[in-house]
Amino acid sequence: MSAESLSPTPRTTLHRLRERARTERADLDAVLDAGLVCHLGVVIDGVPVVLPTGYGWIGNTLYLHGSSANRSLLASAGQQVCVTVTLLDGLVCARAVFHHSMNYRSAVIFGTARLVTDPDEKLAALRAVTDHLVPGRWEHVREPNRKELAATAVLAVPLDEASVKVRSGSPKDDEEDYDSGIWAGVLPAALTFGVAEPDPALTGDVPVPGHIAVLAGRVRGAAPAVDSGP
Amino acid sequence: MSAESLSPTPRTTLHRLRERARTERADLDAVLDAGLVCHLGVVIDGVPVVLPTGYGWIGNTLYLHGSSANRSLLASAGQQVCVTVTLLDGLVCARAVFHHSMNYRSAVIFGTARLVTDPDEKLAALRAVTDHLVPGRWEHVREPNRKELAATAVLAVPLDEASVKVRSGSPKDDEEDYDSGIWAGVLPAALTFGVAEPDPALTGDVPVPGHIAVLAGRVRGAAPAVDSGP
Repeated sequence: MSAESLSPTPRTTLHRLRERARTERADLDAVLDAGLVCHLGVVIDGVPVVLPTGYGWIGNTLYLHGSSANRSLLASAGQQVCVTVTLLDGLVCARAVFHHSMNYRSAVIFGTARLVTDPDEKLAALRAVTDHLVPGRWEHVREPNRKELAATAVLAVPLDEASVKVRSGSPKDDEEDYDSGIWAGVLPAALTFGVAEPDPALTGDVPVPGHIAVLAGRVRGAAPAVDSGP
Repeated sequence: MSAESLSPTPRTTLHRLRERARTERADLDAVLDAGLVCHLGVVIDGVPVVLPTGYGWIGNTLYLHGSSANRSLLASAGQQVCVTVTLLDGLVCARAVFHHSMNYRSAVIFGTARLVTDPDEKLAALRAVTDHLVPGRWEHVREPNRKELAATAVLAVPLDEASVKVRSGSPKDDEEDYDSGIWAGVLPAALTFGVAEPDPALTGDVPVPGHIAVLAGRVRGAAPAVDSGP
């Protein structure tokens, strides 16, 4: 296996629908690139807790951030966590209920989380998270001061163990249903940005900066062109 | 507390940013209505696993479905699970990195999952899931047969214990940053449907049915008009 492959472990090896599996590190990066929000799963008092949060990554480390009073982030430190990023690309409408599906890209990452305490790493992580959400934003705004850094918790999760799945293309029906006359196809879906809404508290004439204006009306992380399925 | 309120328990009571909490059952239904995909968290061999899946609900019961070979669904039976639905409504760009945020609606549901075995309940659940994703679809397509029902696992989760959060409106910055001349505002985001792509395998002239055509170009689960924040 090359260094550019994802390490398959029992829990990241697909047992069904193996044709949906993607095994290259570039596939993981593509899903992370396209997404905005991840879902962090952590066990607290024996019970799973799933929380949405923003993320960024540098090299082989995924970073999540939140308030330093966030119980789920704090509870994750030193614990095994699962971080899932899901992009919904379309609703797959088949001729039979059973064959309905979704087109999607997903990454399920397993790892032991680490609370970032080094100030330089923390700042770099926050920059990665900020610029992942809105590329170019960090340069444009006031950086965190010491007090703000202290009030922010940053969690690091290694990107060593991940399962990446992609479904694209048309529905697959049973042979006997193809002549049913029932319409089948895909209803594409994508997260789309609208036109920026300036803060009413802006004073004077502050134009919408280029890094924001360029996003208006744009799809975030559009799905690549449809391949042959499945 | 009225029957229409969500039951707050220690794990569904917000400890921070309480102004984002919503406590009415109608608020939960609104988030469930607007979403398409949920993230199911379950503990398998002591490790949290977070998987995306479609859902539907009837009254006070949330239903998730998947293959009857899906390990996470099967492992959830009789276990405590967490199901989270997240709608991203916008990126909140403040003058300071620290005050960047997202506008969102989320529901975090805790409960003990039950594998649905009663055929009538299973069929009703699958109808709820299908018609939640694409309203009107069930009437239009072939219903599951016995073999397909057996190949489908349906999980039921009570909607009794949930935490609903909403953030909307403009960024909040520190007083001293308002005169910085830095642009601040909200970049709205929404899941938007495209134009339906008919299955190339369609034979003859099968028009796009109304329940599909009506969704083209539409936003799914648009955020309600922005209130006064926070």
